[in-house]
Amino acid sequence: MTKHDPELSLLFHALADPTRRSILTRLAEAPARVTDLAEPTGLRLPTVMRHLSVLEEAGLIVTSKDGRVRTCAIVPEAFDPMRTWLDEQRAIWEARLDRLDAYVMKLMKERDT
Amino acid sequence: MTKHDPELSLLFHALADPTRRSILTRLAEAPARVTDLAEPTGLRLPTVMRHLSVLEEAGLIVTSKDGRVRTCAIVPEAFDPMRTWLDEQRAIWEARLDRLDAYVMKLMKERDT
Repeated sequence: MTKHDPELSLLFHALADPTRRSILTRLAEAPARVTDLAEPTGLRLPTVMRHLSVLEEAGLIVTSKDGRVRTCAIVPEAFDPMRTWLDEQRAIWEARLDRLDAYVMKLMKERDT
Repeated sequence: MTKHDPELSLLFHALADPTRRSILTRLAEAPARVTDLAEPTGLRLPTVMRHLSVLEEAGLIVTSKDGRVRTCAIVPEAFDPMRTWLDEQRAIWEARLDRLDAYVMKLMKERDT
């Protein structure tokens, strides 16, 4: 995982919008047609289609067309790189806190002897 | 946690840029001066300052000034809402998969009796 992973930028950008997050939550429950996804948002269909494009480009959803009906489905494993990145940051600062703890313990021991 | 949480949008937007992610990784290791953060990026100081503003606005870092030296530090707990949101999505689709499993098991049992 490099620092300049363009995939991560696409993923985090995709989640930086409340409409896109609400669409993902809906799709986590079940696949849905584009028209059904659009309805609760109160947005015009072209606007919703643009949001779906961002999600599809990031790989968070896939769409399929059956006749005139386009259906969207979530791709659960696509969320993994974000979780991994967050875990990596946590590991770094936890290691730092552990070193600080060890240092304080050492100072306290030195003071006591 | 509402669907239209503006805090989440700020947080995910803050992580949607490779320079900002690399600054956070650096700060996860230790607090650092703005000039030291700017150096490895190869970017001009005003550009780096803009990235730092985005991170500070999202609450992911805090900055403090001592004379002419501004220092930045990461705020580990600020990452929690993103992790919580990702966990919530996973819980929703895992519940769905469990229901699907149960349904398939039921069908198989019915076929066997």
